[in-house]
Amino acid sequence: MVAGEGAQRKAGTRSPEEAPKVTITEIAREAGVSVPTVSRVVNGRSDVSPATRARVEDLLHRHGYRRRPAASGTRAVLLDLVFNDLDSPWAVEIIRGVEEVAHEAGVGTVVSAIHDRAGSARQWMTNLRARPSDGVILVTSALEPGLHDELRYLGVPLVVIDPAGSPTTETPAVGATNWTGGLAATEHLLQLGHRRIGFIEGPPRLLCSRARLDGYRAALDVAGVAVDHALTVPGDFHPESGFTGANRLLDLDEPPTAIFAASDQMALGAIEALRRRGLRVPEDMSIVGFDDLPEVRWCAPPLTTVRQPLSDMGKLAARILLDLARNVAPASPRVELATELVVRASTAPPRRP
Amino acid sequence: MVAGEGAQRKAGTRSPEEAPKVTITEIAREAGVSVPTVSRVVNGRSDVSPATRARVEDLLHRHGYRRRPAASGTRAVLLDLVFNDLDSPWAVEIIRGVEEVAHEAGVGTVVSAIHDRAGSARQWMTNLRARPSDGVILVTSALEPGLHDELRYLGVPLVVIDPAGSPTTETPAVGATNWTGGLAATEHLLQLGHRRIGFIEGPPRLLCSRARLDGYRAALDVAGVAVDHALTVPGDFHPESGFTGANRLLDLDEPPTAIFAASDQMALGAIEALRRRGLRVPEDMSIVGFDDLPEVRWCAPPLTTVRQPLSDMGKLAARILLDLARNVAPASPRVELATELVVRASTAPPRRP
Repeated sequence: MVAGEGAQRKAGTRSPEEAPKVTITEIAREAGVSVPTVSRVVNGRSDVSPATRARVEDLLHRHGYRRRPAASGTRAVLLDLVFNDLDSPWAVEIIRGVEEVAHEAGVGTVVSAIHDRAGSARQWMTNLRARPSDGVILVTSALEPGLHDELRYLGVPLVVIDPAGSPTTETPAVGATNWTGGLAATEHLLQLGHRRIGFIEGPPRLLCSRARLDGYRAALDVAGVAVDHALTVPGDFHPESGFTGANRLLDLDEPPTAIFAASDQMALGAIEALRRRGLRVPEDMSIVGFDDLPEVRWCAPPLTTVRQPLSDMGKLAARILLDLARNVAPASPRVELATELVVRASTAPPRRP
Repeated sequence: MVAGEGAQRKAGTRSPEEAPKVTITEIAREAGVSVPTVSRVVNGRSDVSPATRARVEDLLHRHGYRRRPAASGTRAVLLDLVFNDLDSPWAVEIIRGVEEVAHEAGVGTVVSAIHDRAGSARQWMTNLRARPSDGVILVTSALEPGLHDELRYLGVPLVVIDPAGSPTTETPAVGATNWTGGLAATEHLLQLGHRRIGFIEGPPRLLCSRARLDGYRAALDVAGVAVDHALTVPGDFHPESGFTGANRLLDLDEPPTAIFAASDQMALGAIEALRRRGLRVPEDMSIVGFDDLPEVRWCAPPLTTVRQPLSDMGKLAARILLDLARNVAPASPRVELATELVVRASTAPPRRP
């Protein structure tokens, strides 16, 4: 059974035997229907065939599934936005988007950072249990499985922004078209005439890093340019690693004529590495970033980059969450918003040898 | 009388006659004692002389002042952090500091943006009334007086970060030493040998802008350099105004050899204006910013700037607020944390003519 009432929520721990054994996704799978269909049955809507309804209701009954009761007569008042760390300027872009939608709906946005530490996440969960929350937007995949289960047990809806680990089919997720962005950035450099294009990677454990790398390789492949693995160097999205990565590329026997960094912050680090060697951007080296943070319009030179619609991703995640809080299932379990190449002043044709 | 109970909070509007007529500060003034002393009386502490206690208690009684009752048996669960806008990377620095202290105390941080609009602030206040809040940190002075009164009426403690308008003695405030920062930045340029130093101002309605300008002028004055008012140009802290301001300074018959911008973002705009004219930093022009946003370490060149301890200001504001929520008065109604000059690569001696 799923606990719902505030009083029950505060009751503290209970035995694992009482935890819900089944999710709406599992019901859907077992019934051979979509999650929205199960949601329609749960919500008593009429647009479900009688046969399907009977099958789903039977499964719901057998598994003891009970819909989270709507909070008694009150509407949503708070949602939770949980980051791993608040150490990046892109965090404020996501906060801005989530807050805007929540604020318009009369809902407050509780912002937390759990620092990849179980104790910190547990602290947040304790706070969550002591007050209302209509749902959680997680900007990380690092929530330990136990906390995932606890959220489900509490009946608190969950939406993930840009999941860094394996996307699960159970949790609605909002991402960006990372692969297409990687492709567009590389195609731009190819069209300018570059053939030796360096790539500074994001953390390989994050799927978005893999997608950007694969987009880079696909563009080279389509253009008939052989992938030289020496031109791909590791990074972690932070500026320091862009600085180090650019230096590694510049130290190659045959350095690239352009560098695509998988984050804007790494692109800034790369530009600084070039500056220290007396090399100019874009005259001596073209640079492309990824994110389009507000600041990079004002880099010297203004950065060509792949815009990731962080604020829009936050808005969409908030809309999905507020729907879930009203038991409206999302149209799709995973949505990717379009990235867009923004050409500014850090890219130019390669210098003729 | 001051309403305190949750049920009363939700009761909606009541007549202005019922609003509290007196604050603890007014009591302190009338009794000729400090605010902490009144607070000690209110909290029944023993370290107050009998005569003082009698005088304060008499005034409290005559004015019908009643301490906000502690929430029944519960501890703090939420605090509110209210910005005008979430459009600047420094917002995330403040959020980071507040969240860290609140999180450690088991308190959630509700982040809101009210966009200088009464309707939006009212929307936030409606949300606030529908759920617990142990206090409000305001990163703006733009809350309309009615809402200030309402917070006081609800008995919700308030702390202001870097008040942009007139500091009131009633509200505890956390700022930074803006005047000293302006002085240090200008002294640094003077020591490098600059005599014509341009200044790009912040919005004049903000006291922090005035303080930075006055610090700049004081340093010139101390060094015996006459203040040339043509070298001070307007700005609004945003990059565009730094771009425009630098162009105005460069178009002077006798342009400066260095520019001090009152925000990092304006410094970035100024560097871009120079780049477009083919001028180099610091060879052709020195640039100093103000804030030390994390990104400016990675500017090309890394920016010399005045560090404003935004995250620490957030931490301190949160600590004061959590104290106020436990009826512990702050040691001082206004605290300014030290700014610090950080010398990087954007400043150098002036080019010899």
